[in-house]
Amino acid sequence: MLDFGREDFEVLLSETLNMEKYAKSKLDILGDKVLALAFFEPSTRTRLSFETAMLRLGGKVIGFSGTEATSMVKGENLADTIRMLDAYANAIVIRHSLEGTAKFAAEIAGSPVINAGDGSQNHPTQAMLDLYTIWREFKVIDGLSIGILGDLRYARVVNSLIQALSYYRIKLHLISPELLKPRQELIEFMKSRDMKYDWTDDPYNVINDLDVLYIVRIQRERFPDPMEYERVKGTYKVMPKLIERSKPSLIILHPLPRVDEVDFTVDSMPQAKYFKQAGLGVPLRMALLKLVLAGDKS
Amino acid sequence: MLDFGREDFEVLLSETLNMEKYAKSKLDILGDKVLALAFFEPSTRTRLSFETAMLRLGGKVIGFSGTEATSMVKGENLADTIRMLDAYANAIVIRHSLEGTAKFAAEIAGSPVINAGDGSQNHPTQAMLDLYTIWREFKVIDGLSIGILGDLRYARVVNSLIQALSYYRIKLHLISPELLKPRQELIEFMKSRDMKYDWTDDPYNVINDLDVLYIVRIQRERFPDPMEYERVKGTYKVMPKLIERSKPSLIILHPLPRVDEVDFTVDSMPQAKYFKQAGLGVPLRMALLKLVLAGDKS
Amino acid sequence: MLDFGREDFEVLLSETLNMEKYAKSKLDILGDKVLALAFFEPSTRTRLSFETAMLRLGGKVIGFSGTEATSMVKGENLADTIRMLDAYANAIVIRHSLEGTAKFAAEIAGSPVINAGDGSQNHPTQAMLDLYTIWREFKVIDGLSIGILGDLRYARVVNSLIQALSYYRIKLHLISPELLKPRQELIEFMKSRDMKYDWTDDPYNVINDLDVLYIVRIQRERFPDPMEYERVKGTYKVMPKLIERSKPSLIILHPLPRVDEVDFTVDSMPQAKYFKQAGLGVPLRMALLKLVLAGDKS
Repeated sequence: MLDFGREDFEVLLSETLNMEKYAKSKLDILGDKVLALAFFEPSTRTRLSFETAMLRLGGKVIGFSGTEATSMVKGENLADTIRMLDAYANAIVIRHSLEGTAKFAAEIAGSPVINAGDGSQNHPTQAMLDLYTIWREFKVIDGLSIGILGDLRYARVVNSLIQALSYYRIKLHLISPELLKPRQELIEFMKSRDMKYDWTDDPYNVINDLDVLYIVRIQRERFPDPMEYERVKGTYKVMPKLIERSKPSLIILHPLPRVDEVDFTVDSMPQAKYFKQAGLGVPLRMALLKLVLAGDKS
Repeated sequence: MLDFGREDFEVLLSETLNMEKYAKSKLDILGDKVLALAFFEPSTRTRLSFETAMLRLGGKVIGFSGTEATSMVKGENLADTIRMLDAYANAIVIRHSLEGTAKFAAEIAGSPVINAGDGSQNHPTQAMLDLYTIWREFKVIDGLSIGILGDLRYARVVNSLIQALSYYRIKLHLISPELLKPRQELIEFMKSRDMKYDWTDDPYNVINDLDVLYIVRIQRERFPDPMEYERVKGTYKVMPKLIERSKPSLIILHPLPRVDEVDFTVDSMPQAKYFKQAGLGVPLRMALLKLVLAGDKS
Repeated sequence: MLDFGREDFEVLLSETLNMEKYAKSKLDILGDKVLALAFFEPSTRTRLSFETAMLRLGGKVIGFSGTEATSMVKGENLADTIRMLDAYANAIVIRHSLEGTAKFAAEIAGSPVINAGDGSQNHPTQAMLDLYTIWREFKVIDGLSIGILGDLRYARVVNSLIQALSYYRIKLHLISPELLKPRQELIEFMKSRDMKYDWTDDPYNVINDLDVLYIVRIQRERFPDPMEYERVKGTYKVMPKLIERSKPSLIILHPLPRVDEVDFTVDSMPQAKYFKQAGLGVPLRMALLKLVLAGDKS
């Protein structure tokens, strides 16, 4: 995420707005390009939105999802697998459970590498999508009050989103159980960028101040004691009664998939923008692929 | 199946005949369309024929086969998965083990949804293919004598085929073990459409009257008592000696895959049309996709 | 492999050289063709290079990898599966663990069938790639001294490579543990073509004479006694100290994936050509697909 600067975001955001015109049809600008999708970890939304984006741009897609059907089962090392994809394709999109995999791949590959999520701390294209959705709704990001609710410690996207937001002057409300507070590195990062933020364990404390409520899943398995999970989970399931206390202009975002952290009755409230957000994943990735590939003739 | 009327069939049948010209080459009319294949249940024939049809029409294909690699494993509900595919693609083809899934998906999605088989009672595109193959061979459907042999109770396609045939004036011979007779709903449906039909447990009783013999697999697991299966299976395995008693003009159809319900020695008999039928799945689905997608610019 | 003659190789080699120009972009000559990939056995390199090659030629690709998601699980026989692919596609690429499967498929299918590896004795397109890489480096094949090191008994590609080389006048050094010497059939084949060859169990005996060192994996499971494997494996792991004794013009090839039969420190030596070789898999398969499909209008 930090490879991007504010100027890069401006370019990406306006390019994405432009791409919305083609997101349900096509724009043939990458007909001579092949994109390799290396998904070592299951994903539907991210994988299919990259695939749709590339195809709508006239490009081709190869790759694999899960390692079962790959040479990894024959004991091939990751570097050799990347070298192969690099030799075949014009760019590589990689998702891996291990942190740093995308960076490692980028050092090996001559072609551009896009991180589609690695480890528990990085999911930059999701953060770009979040940023775009906010910008699209408010026409601005500076000055907004943004709340991030849920697992601030292990949810892949939180770290990337906060890094993206660090390029803007926003007010940040962090909301999570004690156990799932952001890790020290993230705290220090926010300080280093002097981001204004506070933390609370109760969404009701800050809901009325929010322009954006960003929800991430809280996973049972994060709690050593299941009883503890049962105790907190009610507090963090977003219900209409919470949203009713917000500004009417609030927007609710969620990277999806959601399990039970957002009540279905919220879906029909005007503040619920998470399905719209998901749909914007295609134009966002079309813009990204254009910026990465349209120039190069490798 | 019942969303289609006789007029719709006429259009589909003649459009399919037209599409046969392109079924091994291409017709670029859907270049700006993406088709999402949501196969929650394994399938080769149906999945690959839809995929081939879309690609031959210049369209693009995304999707998944089996739920392993999807967000469903993260506990996402079906509605959210459909909303995502709806946001990315211009149409959705869905197969699911649960009856009613396609209807449910169609209510959620803004894009057209095509049922590629759900539950144990619906497989409309297969029935359309069956209807087309019959029409193509006889240039007519009204007045034919059609026998359906095998599992009339659980075989997905039987229900859809009889619904499709209900738009025509045909004579229907149902042939199955006592245990696998059609269910009451189907009987009532046939009555409501005054379809002429009879039932027998012995194909030899009706073979000489048939223009079409449609065979569906009988699955061992349907029999509480395996001995019972062993007892009947001989009767329902189609052998040359049965076909020799038929009119020379008889055609034998089968949705495939076949296991051992049709003896391999039958394959080379002139009446065997099931491989030809399978090949027609591509032009049939090309016609269907054209009718569903060529108009819309969504 | 033996369906090819020396003249066919000449055509293939020069067509591949020509295809290198398009291997990272495109050449739209197969827009009306669909290629079916029937991979009954896992593969990344072979599958993705065929897929990339077909897409770069403007063609379309369908198929499956692994049998889980196919009708085979419903008990369909291979012949019927091939008939289906033959009906849908313009050509079939098949990989199977059973020897002779590709030949069997070719007898059933009307469309061309390409063997992407079957049984333990055939992998012709890999051998073509090996031949091309050698020819590309030396501008000639006749007169070269070629060493093949590793599992000469079970490694699929060895048999195909030696068959391909039998059309040229080369000196062949076979290097393997006693246990993994070539089987009798291969010995007899070499005699029948009067190929000059010798065998040694120690690479150091012949390294200084080699122009090409071709390495194939030695698999632990081939050794009844694991101790025996531990004993020999050191000898057959290629290290810089072995390469330092070679001619400077030596090239090292490997079909990949490699596990630990080539030390990573060798990768950076100028003789190491196996990654380059892997990349050439795309133009080679583009050339092959053009030769097989560009003419036919089936």
